[in-house]
Amino acid sequence: MAQFEAKTLKGFRDFLPDAMAPRQAMLRVIEATFERQGFVPLSTPALEYAETLTGKYGDEGDKLLYKFQDHGEREVALRYDLTVPLARVVAQHRNDLQLPLRRYQVASVWRADKPQRGRFREFMQCDADIVGPNTALADAEVLCTGLAVLRSLGIEGAMLHLNHRDLLFSFLQAAGVDDPDQQLKCIRAVDKLDKIGQAGVTAEIVRECGLTDEQAAKAIAPFLAAEATGGAESEFARIRAFFQQELTAAALESALSAVARLETVLGLVTAAGFGAMIQFNRSVARGLDYYTGVIYETRLTDPRVAGIGAVMSGGRYDHLIGMFSRDEIPAVGISLGLDRLLAALVELGLIPGGQGTTPVCVTVFSADQAGTSLQVAQLLRDAGLRVEVDTQGGKLGKQLERAAKRGNVLAVVLGPDEVAAGEAVLKDLRKGEQLKVKIAELAQAAAHALAD
Amino acid sequence: MAQFEAKTLKGFRDFLPDAMAPRQAMLRVIEATFERQGFVPLSTPALEYAETLTGKYGDEGDKLLYKFQDHGEREVALRYDLTVPLARVVAQHRNDLQLPLRRYQVASVWRADKPQRGRFREFMQCDADIVGPNTALADAEVLCTGLAVLRSLGIEGAMLHLNHRDLLFSFLQAAGVDDPDQQLKCIRAVDKLDKIGQAGVTAEIVRECGLTDEQAAKAIAPFLAAEATGGAESEFARIRAFFQQELTAAALESALSAVARLETVLGLVTAAGFGAMIQFNRSVARGLDYYTGVIYETRLTDPRVAGIGAVMSGGRYDHLIGMFSRDEIPAVGISLGLDRLLAALVELGLIPGGQGTTPVCVTVFSADQAGTSLQVAQLLRDAGLRVEVDTQGGKLGKQLERAAKRGNVLAVVLGPDEVAAGEAVLKDLRKGEQLKVKIAELAQAAAHALAD
Repeated sequence: MAQFEAKTLKGFRDFLPDAMAPRQAMLRVIEATFERQGFVPLSTPALEYAETLTGKYGDEGDKLLYKFQDHGEREVALRYDLTVPLARVVAQHRNDLQLPLRRYQVASVWRADKPQRGRFREFMQCDADIVGPNTALADAEVLCTGLAVLRSLGIEGAMLHLNHRDLLFSFLQAAGVDDPDQQLKCIRAVDKLDKIGQAGVTAEIVRECGLTDEQAAKAIAPFLAAEATGGAESEFARIRAFFQQELTAAALESALSAVARLETVLGLVTAAGFGAMIQFNRSVARGLDYYTGVIYETRLTDPRVAGIGAVMSGGRYDHLIGMFSRDEIPAVGISLGLDRLLAALVELGLIPGGQGTTPVCVTVFSADQAGTSLQVAQLLRDAGLRVEVDTQGGKLGKQLERAAKRGNVLAVVLGPDEVAAGEAVLKDLRKGEQLKVKIAELAQAAAHALAD
Repeated sequence: MAQFEAKTLKGFRDFLPDAMAPRQAMLRVIEATFERQGFVPLSTPALEYAETLTGKYGDEGDKLLYKFQDHGEREVALRYDLTVPLARVVAQHRNDLQLPLRRYQVASVWRADKPQRGRFREFMQCDADIVGPNTALADAEVLCTGLAVLRSLGIEGAMLHLNHRDLLFSFLQAAGVDDPDQQLKCIRAVDKLDKIGQAGVTAEIVRECGLTDEQAAKAIAPFLAAEATGGAESEFARIRAFFQQELTAAALESALSAVARLETVLGLVTAAGFGAMIQFNRSVARGLDYYTGVIYETRLTDPRVAGIGAVMSGGRYDHLIGMFSRDEIPAVGISLGLDRLLAALVELGLIPGGQGTTPVCVTVFSADQAGTSLQVAQLLRDAGLRVEVDTQGGKLGKQLERAAKRGNVLAVVLGPDEVAAGEAVLKDLRKGEQLKVKIAELAQAAAHALAD
């Protein structure tokens, strides 16, 4: 037969068992937490009509869509995120869905981006959103959910940086940038502050918006304000006073309402017990155009993983669903960065290793004893243990060698004499110890040895 | 903004929470069973180089591939199944994988097939395979795993129909069809026996292989033999005698070795406790070209779901990995039909309904009491309950109406007087009953009410 070179596409990954098992363990904790927080699963297809996705992510995003013609010459595209498909679902199934809808989805998305360290063309997104009410309670519930996930994973040192899009618009307004398109360009530039620095942001605003250096510097000055002293409360008071001085009455309402929303949300998240994990941060901008209210990014504070970047982000997007529907339906959501989270959990020792190997191996004494091995294995499995049978055969010594190399913790040996006496030998491959156990008590003995 | 029509592509599905929650509950049972049976998770990308996939599924399959050029003008394709990517992975990561590899994978696959009842262009496959040894033990372990999954899901009435590709080849050989290509064409035709009947199969063989009607009838006669009387043992004896009479010595070896393998595998699966769920069936053919050893299909026997088709199938494929590698690496696997399984579980009442709704709703008495609601909700969640907070607000009566309509089972009401006394009101929305509970004991009371 012809030989094909076995290779993966650049930016795409195989997850072998040692890499996949901890990912899956993490995903199960996340999903269970989403469900406790009152979210239910919803799933959308990998492929959508291209027109469903284009025009939602900005020009940059459009270029990264995997787009092609299907067999019926329809223009289709692989999903780019889980948010636009959610908006499509809500509009399409409006009559079958009761609002508020609290859904979570964990699924792969595809972006034809330049692959680099930590950036892939296929990666998994993990979102929870509340669709329906534009309320501080909905904002607070999704934020608490994200923070509850981090806590469930064992992460204590995390800080959610909270801001509001209308606050950004108001700051820009006060600086004299009042064209909505220019405002968005400025926000996209500010979003890159960490990456390109103050000078880079200023240069981008000059280039993109045609502002002078001075105007650009003024536009971004409010975002660079030093961290609050005296806490969020006094910072909000100062911002209120600033807006009252700088804005017209017409522009003031939206600015003050953003400050009020931020205060309320901070208060609610604190009441829920997550006060130590959240703070107001006026420099958070978020790159996507569709955000309309609260926006946030969450960073880990433990110095061992502080450089890992945002692990949970999102915001309110009240106009996106309206692009598919007659009704504007508000929504707010969070998205977890799974690759970063997993890297952090491994670095912090919060994910146990070795899950890629089944803990118990039942060996096969001889071909005519193979049925006994399967029978005993099934007995242990029915008791809840993870058990493999050696399917390769050969001498017992070879089987035990393979088991140890593979990383099995326990091996069961079923010699005919022992079996005749209703017994088995249980070997601890880490300790090199073994003991004879009644087969009826083998499951209990194995569970006990594994718990050691 | 522009309006887009919200629609899904034909053959693709949204799973709203009421449909998704039971699917997910089923998948969790399946994955947990796979792990108890000694399989570990492995994941491959959705997109592969097109040449990795083409030429593996026959001409029909090739036509169904979603194939396109990516941004780097590479020919790529969405995966068509999980078996060919597994073969690619094993060849590619040969040095990082210890054999036998026992992996499972649950993931979507895409086929541009004509959509019809029960057939979709995107569907989820759910596979477990043992890569490495070509042994009866490996065959038996995957079969036991498939049957253990059915049993874990609560399905007792299922029958796995077991056959062997070499038995089919030998029957055809005995009928004078000795060209390997013609043999495969006959097998593909026999695979359609249920769909197109004996006359249809005969006609297809005449058309595809250029045989006479008489030759075609002779070729398929052995597959049509009535069910064995006297059990598999005497049927195997009759088949052995038939081959000894009809085949040359050269052809006999492979035939007898297939019979022996079938006998051994049946014995092992019976020893493991699944004897009542497996039988030999000489008419099982399987359509895919790459099978080389045991093949099987599993049907449900409960009359309520007997018409649902095969729910678990697969076989041994010892040459597929060799297409990507210098080494031939044998493998054997099962694949579960998730859509059919779920339909059966629902029909048999084995999947509880209502999982698409969170059971507990905490209401919000007034805006300035919202923090208390979030705090109490988080308390219940930390105790393991699935809880949503009413994020829409409004009058308490409206909130309770919404909760009942949505399907919440319990509602928590936190009036200021009760809260001041450290108490809450727990309402059972099904029964219309309510009781006052200390907040410290609320989680326990709610869990108790839900267990009712």
